[in-house]
Amino acid sequence: MDLSPDWVVGFTDGEGCFHVSVVRNSKTTLGYQVIPEFVIVQHKRNIQILYALKRFFKCGVIRKNHEDRWALRIRKISCLKEICDFFTKHPLKTKKNVDFIRFRRIIHKMEEGRHLTPKGLIEIIDIALQMNTEKRTSLIDIKKEIINRFPEMGRGSG
Amino acid sequence: MDLSPDWVVGFTDGEGCFHVSVVRNSKTTLGYQVIPEFVIVQHKRNIQILYALKRFFKCGVIRKNHEDRWALRIRKISCLKEICDFFTKHPLKTKKNVDFIRFRRIIHKMEEGRHLTPKGLIEIIDIALQMNTEKRTSLIDIKKEIINRFPEMGRGSG
Repeated sequence: MDLSPDWVVGFTDGEGCFHVSVVRNSKTTLGYQVIPEFVIVQHKRNIQILYALKRFFKCGVIRKNHEDRWALRIRKISCLKEICDFFTKHPLKTKKNVDFIRFRRIIHKMEEGRHLTPKGLIEIIDIALQMNTEKRTSLIDIKKEIINRFPEMGRGSG
Repeated sequence: MDLSPDWVVGFTDGEGCFHVSVVRNSKTTLGYQVIPEFVIVQHKRNIQILYALKRFFKCGVIRKNHEDRWALRIRKISCLKEICDFFTKHPLKTKKNVDFIRFRRIIHKMEEGRHLTPKGLIEIIDIALQMNTEKRTSLIDIKKEIINRFPEMGRGSG
């Protein structure tokens, strides 16, 4: 099945999700790992669409998500860079584009290694807080913890 | 905002719904009215997309659906004919295309006036039963009622 860029944009406007989570990971310098991902979830009856999208983007992993639902997840930073280039060239038409623009800012910061500094990590959390409303408490707690550890970060970071 | 056919197909693959209901209506010959519709529901933040789709199809009514959600509904048969022509020329890529093909069979039957005969109405209900799983009981009851009233319909209609 061949997909056109416009079809992919339309389908993503409906079904795509740009998501950024921050999780504890003792192996990282700051103790936290930033995980940005582009996800499309579909009922298993449409799994062939997930494979077509994976071929289209030449990226991603398809796994069972929940019950009858499967997900294509793209997490690799080099792949997400490609995703950002694609949706910059072919903009989303719904308000999802606002989330995408925030997502792209986070990817750019990660490419510059900003997520490895307390200041950069807080900047990323501040952007993620505008995107993912469902995990606000966890992100706010992480932000507080970083500010406690690096008190100079508390000034002017909102 | 200009929409391309491919974007509209992709967005419909994600968000569109082809739906057929059969409701009691004493003003019709058989006492039942067939209501096919093409519906796209969106959060109010994306209402501009519904207006863009309405302009694209030159059809439909936009109304509040439920809480923060709004819907573009296309019900007029002449408009649904255009919708069918569009999605025949630009096929859906998900399994939604299977529903669309059933929907198109119903629209064709209605154009031929088949919904006004007991046999045609039962044929339409049989197709709708393959599409709308959430109202099976109601459709099955209506089918039984028609067969009771027109016993010759019971033979060979499944």
